[in-house]
Amino acid sequence: MRYTLFALLMFTFAVPASAQKVRYAIIAHGGAGAYKDKGERGEVMVRVMTDAIKSGQKMLEEGKQGLDVVEHVIKQLEDAPVFNAGRGAVMNYNGDFELDASIMDGRDLNAGAVAGVSRIKNPISLARKVMTDTRHVLLAGKGAELLAGEVKMELIDPEYFRTDHQQARWKKARAEADSKNKQTSTKKAPVYLGTVGCVVLDTDGNLAAGTSTGGLMMKRIGRVGDSPCIGAGTYADNRGAGVSCTGTGELFIRHAIAYEVSSAVRFGRATAAEAAGELLHKTLDKDTGGIIAIDHDGNIVADFNTGGMMRGMANSAGLFEVSMGPKEKE
Amino acid sequence: MRYTLFALLMFTFAVPASAQKVRYAIIAHGGAGAYKDKGERGEVMVRVMTDAIKSGQKMLEEGKQGLDVVEHVIKQLEDAPVFNAGRGAVMNYNGDFELDASIMDGRDLNAGAVAGVSRIKNPISLARKVMTDTRHVLLAGKGAELLAGEVKMELIDPEYFRTDHQQARWKKARAEADSKNKQTSTKKAPVYLGTVGCVVLDTDGNLAAGTSTGGLMMKRIGRVGDSPCIGAGTYADNRGAGVSCTGTGELFIRHAIAYEVSSAVRFGRATAAEAAGELLHKTLDKDTGGIIAIDHDGNIVADFNTGGMMRGMANSAGLFEVSMGPKEKE
Repeated sequence: MRYTLFALLMFTFAVPASAQKVRYAIIAHGGAGAYKDKGERGEVMVRVMTDAIKSGQKMLEEGKQGLDVVEHVIKQLEDAPVFNAGRGAVMNYNGDFELDASIMDGRDLNAGAVAGVSRIKNPISLARKVMTDTRHVLLAGKGAELLAGEVKMELIDPEYFRTDHQQARWKKARAEADSKNKQTSTKKAPVYLGTVGCVVLDTDGNLAAGTSTGGLMMKRIGRVGDSPCIGAGTYADNRGAGVSCTGTGELFIRHAIAYEVSSAVRFGRATAAEAAGELLHKTLDKDTGGIIAIDHDGNIVADFNTGGMMRGMANSAGLFEVSMGPKEKE
Repeated sequence: MRYTLFALLMFTFAVPASAQKVRYAIIAHGGAGAYKDKGERGEVMVRVMTDAIKSGQKMLEEGKQGLDVVEHVIKQLEDAPVFNAGRGAVMNYNGDFELDASIMDGRDLNAGAVAGVSRIKNPISLARKVMTDTRHVLLAGKGAELLAGEVKMELIDPEYFRTDHQQARWKKARAEADSKNKQTSTKKAPVYLGTVGCVVLDTDGNLAAGTSTGGLMMKRIGRVGDSPCIGAGTYADNRGAGVSCTGTGELFIRHAIAYEVSSAVRFGRATAAEAAGELLHKTLDKDTGGIIAIDHDGNIVADFNTGGMMRGMANSAGLFEVSMGPKEKE
């Protein structure tokens, strides 16, 4: 059995639902990457993630729908300047913002996504509007912002997204690229990929998932990563799993990672933990990203092939955990 | 066995490779949709498809790589004004062109795609440049056209794409939408979806696939369909299958159709014909699209849940067929 070794390696990375099926489960991530003591910035990340998970858990206790919880949690992470999503996002080659987000409903596979938006405070909310208010799944650039106007969503000054931290990183990366006279940054692994995502199993037994990001620092203008690609960065299917990914998006697109994890569960080929482990530790190279997932039984998965991944999780059986570094039980 | 009924229904839709494994196989589509006698326009479609398959077959006989064949065949279909790709593409709500294309290499899962380009004569060739010349998979809009400049690809006047046929259809659809004061067209099934695609198994045993389209008539500005989404409209994996789809792209994204067909073969869950049949005739509603695929053994699949699908196919065992209407053996 090809998954046996990974099942052995991975079982500590998955948090099994208790014998009695959990009523709800929630997990969020704030990106994967090199882990080191992040000092004050790391403390803020932990605090924001803790608050986000707590508020999501409260909504779930109140019986709120998974989609509402996913949107609510991701909005908080987008609003926090310490993650690469919404405020605090990274910049493209030109120093401009092009934000991507997607959301998916595990009940009916309905989905919405936006790519390359620069004037939407909460891209996850516009992604949801694409799902509910249009016949389309993915809207890019100005077209997405046209929809925002139609649904009375405020268009903001892109400067809102700019933080000193990312501006300094961009300047350094751009200078490096200019010295090579090429519109690409290096192929080296990025320091930290702060994409955010959330997956929820609600008390009605429905799965929902969402992802939001500023993409890769110094990405080419117009680059679309995995986050707005349903099946790559985000997927949710009540018959399988809810999944959100973070990392080198191109690899997650090529391997259809989010869909593959859900599909493995749906067709009984592997558990979500086994499928995520296989993809992260066998299929993909080291230092390329992380996956969070919840299956239809409420089993939570948080796995990564990087030094660390900011994550927070909770369920109705008393689990509450926020962590950033390598898995303690390894 | 859930696939049994479909296997029975479907086996006539698949062209099995001969007992002796074929050296190569090729299939292309020119979109699925309502089928009726298309008169002169239909004759042109058949002629163009015949020429395209013949030229692809010739390249395969010469031992050319699958990727080269896919690009070459799709370029011919893009250049013909009778298909909804390249010249002859449909227009968005504003009457402008936003073309999408993608290409994938089954050897290493490398892939490239462009979305929303309006100044590139052959979007499939730019998609290939994204694959070979950048670290990204998908570039949208102006960013994709910036790359074209870098790789010395000519930027053309978008009016090149406009044909009387599509202009007349757009005017009618836009007038209808204006009467409802809304930036969407009707939800009714489109008359004919003329997306083009090609899948090849070359003499080295490698699979490649590509898809190119103008999208949906009267689509919202910025709408990205399944064609540039790897895993939705296009997928190729030597361990599974090469796949190209046509139809209501949003559904193909939500169900990760192209990836699912390849994955079913790779993991031994179903043949490509069974998987495509299950998706088209059970998962999706009628009149939503078609799928072409070739598995690693050279078995060719052409299936659709619409009245017809323009398709041409050939292999080294003497198969040569170009057709448009319902399957004759049904």
